[in-house]
Amino acid sequence: MTFTYKNVYINETGTVVGPYEKKGPLNNYFDRSHDEFYFGTKTWEQAESKLIEEAVDITLNKLGKNRFDIDLFISGDLLNQLVASNYAASTLNIPYLGVYNACASSVEGLLLAANMIEAGQVKHCLCAASSHNNAAEKQFRYPVEYGGPKPKTTTFTTTGAAVAYVTYNKKGIRIESGTVGKVVDMGVKDAYQMGAVMAPAAADTIFKHLQDTKREIDYYDLVLTGDLGSVGKKILVDYMNTEYGIQLKHYDDTAAMIFDLENQEVYSGGSGPACAPLVTYSYIFHQMKKHKLKRVLLVATGALMSTTMVNQKLSIPAIAHAVSLEVVE
Amino acid sequence: MTFTYKNVYINETGTVVGPYEKKGPLNNYFDRSHDEFYFGTKTWEQAESKLIEEAVDITLNKLGKNRFDIDLFISGDLLNQLVASNYAASTLNIPYLGVYNACASSVEGLLLAANMIEAGQVKHCLCAASSHNNAAEKQFRYPVEYGGPKPKTTTFTTTGAAVAYVTYNKKGIRIESGTVGKVVDMGVKDAYQMGAVMAPAAADTIFKHLQDTKREIDYYDLVLTGDLGSVGKKILVDYMNTEYGIQLKHYDDTAAMIFDLENQEVYSGGSGPACAPLVTYSYIFHQMKKHKLKRVLLVATGALMSTTMVNQKLSIPAIAHAVSLEVVE
Repeated sequence: MTFTYKNVYINETGTVVGPYEKKGPLNNYFDRSHDEFYFGTKTWEQAESKLIEEAVDITLNKLGKNRFDIDLFISGDLLNQLVASNYAASTLNIPYLGVYNACASSVEGLLLAANMIEAGQVKHCLCAASSHNNAAEKQFRYPVEYGGPKPKTTTFTTTGAAVAYVTYNKKGIRIESGTVGKVVDMGVKDAYQMGAVMAPAAADTIFKHLQDTKREIDYYDLVLTGDLGSVGKKILVDYMNTEYGIQLKHYDDTAAMIFDLENQEVYSGGSGPACAPLVTYSYIFHQMKKHKLKRVLLVATGALMSTTMVNQKLSIPAIAHAVSLEVVE
Repeated sequence: MTFTYKNVYINETGTVVGPYEKKGPLNNYFDRSHDEFYFGTKTWEQAESKLIEEAVDITLNKLGKNRFDIDLFISGDLLNQLVASNYAASTLNIPYLGVYNACASSVEGLLLAANMIEAGQVKHCLCAASSHNNAAEKQFRYPVEYGGPKPKTTTFTTTGAAVAYVTYNKKGIRIESGTVGKVVDMGVKDAYQMGAVMAPAAADTIFKHLQDTKREIDYYDLVLTGDLGSVGKKILVDYMNTEYGIQLKHYDDTAAMIFDLENQEVYSGGSGPACAPLVTYSYIFHQMKKHKLKRVLLVATGALMSTTMVNQKLSIPAIAHAVSLEVVE
C-alpha cells in the first residue's frame, strides 16, 4: 500500500540521546545529549518518557510554537502498553494516538501524519518515537545489572527520543511517498537474531515500494534501513539480490551509524524505535540540507518480538514501513 | 480534534466471543460463540490471535471478498507488543498498522481508517480489536488459576474479537464524524478502579466532540461508552453533570450490556478492547438497522494502565476516542 503526497513536509525535528549515543560518531548532530540514564527521574521507564518530553520541547522551541499550536501527537515506543508515549502525552494535553509496530513505529507515525496532512484533516502534527536501553533490556532480556553475556548478533537498544513536526508548510524535508508494509515471518525463533528476522520484511517493503512507484532502486541516493545491525544489513543486501535481483548499492543502516561499532561495546549496532529517526532527523537531514543527498528512502524495520511468544516457541514476525524523503530546494 | 466524514461506511462486521459472552444477554447477536477459551490453540495468547483471524474470515465471507481485496489491516489489543494483532496480521498478508490506546484502540482504528477512506487514500480497510480474559488476567493481574479475590469495582475482560470493514460504499452504518481524545490523568492509582480512571477522559472527549460539532447532547439517540463498568458509568453521569452541566439521559455503557451483571460473576462488567466494538457491531448495529436508534455516539475509553508504572506508584492515565455513527437510510 503506497501513498503519494504533494504537500507534506517535516519542517523541524528534535533529537535527544543518552550516554552511548553521545560517545558515538553522530553526537554533534543531536540537539541534546545526556551523560547518564535517568534525566532527573527515578526509573528508566519514566526517564524514557522524559526523553520524549524533552524532544517535543526542543522541536517546539525551534519552531517558536507551543503545544496549543499542535493538532495531534502520534507516538510509539517499545515499552509494554507504550508507557513512555502515554506518560509523555499525559503532560502535553494534545489529542493523542498511540502506535505500535516495534522499531517501525517511527515511520508508521510519519505515514499516518502524512496521510492526514495531505488530506487537510490535520495541519500541525508531532510524531515521536523513543527507546531506552536499560528499560528495554529489563523488559525483553535481563536487567543490565545482571551483566549477562550476549551473542555478537544482538543489537543494542538506543537511548533517545526523536520528534518530527509534520505539516503542509513547504520547508525542510518533503515526505514524497510512503509504503505500509506487511507482516513477514520467515520462521526465525532466535530472539538474538533480530537482523535476520527483519531483513526479509525490509526487502518486501522496498520491493513493493519500487513496484508501486514504478521506480528503479537507483532513483534513491540512499536507501536507509533502521535497524538491521551489521549482521542484518549483510543479509538484506544478499536477500535483495538473490530474491528480487535488486542490487543495493547506495545503502546504509542506522544501527551501524549511531555507534562506533569498532570501539563501542554495542554488538551489531543500535536498535529501538528511536534509532532510525535519531539518525535520520540529525545526520541524514543535515546531509540532505547540504544537498549531499537528495532522495532518501527511509525503511524502518520492526521485529514484532514478544518474550511471551518466544517462550511459546513461536517464530518472530517482522514488519517494515518506508517513506521517501526529499530535500526542499 | 474532530474530523467530519461524508463518505465513510462500515458495510460489514464480524464478531466472535468466548464462553462468558455466550452466556450473556447479547449472544444471539454475535456471529460466532465459543464454549471454551482455546479455540484449537495451545495458549491463551494464540487463542486471542485466532479470534481475530476468525472475525476477519467471517467478515470477508459475509462480503464475498477475500483478503486480497483488502488494502489495509488496522488492529489493536491489550497484550504486550500487540501479539494477538501481530500474529493474526502475519497470517493475512495485508499491509498492517498496529495501534494501541488500550480499550480505546477499536475507535482509534476506526478513526484512522475513516480519515484514509474519506481522503480516498484507501478503499477497503479492516479494523480489528480483540481481548482474552485469561490472557489479560495473566498479564495484568494473576493467572486465573490462582483464584485471587477482587473488589467489586473491577471489570472483567471480554474474550472476543470484533472486525469492521470500513469503505466508501454507501451501505450499512455511516461514520459521520470522529473525535481524537487527549490523555487525562486525574491522579487515580488504584488498578482496580478503571471506571474512575476512565470516566473523566470520556467526559473530556464527549464535551470536545459536542463543542467541535456545535451539537447538544440530545442530538444523539444514544451515547455509548465502553467500558466504564457499572461503577464508572455512574461516575461519568455525575461528572458530566457537575463539571460540564451536561445531562446524559440517553446513555449506556457496553460493559453493563455484554454480561448479565446480576447473574454472572463479572464484577462491574465487561472490559477489554473487544467489548465496545462487540456490543456496537452486533446489538447496536441491529437496533440501528431496525431504526430503533438513528444516531449513536460511540466513545471507547482506554485506561493506559501498566503494571510497571502502577508498581512505581504513578497514577493511571486514560484516553477516550469517539465516533458518531448513523444508519444509512
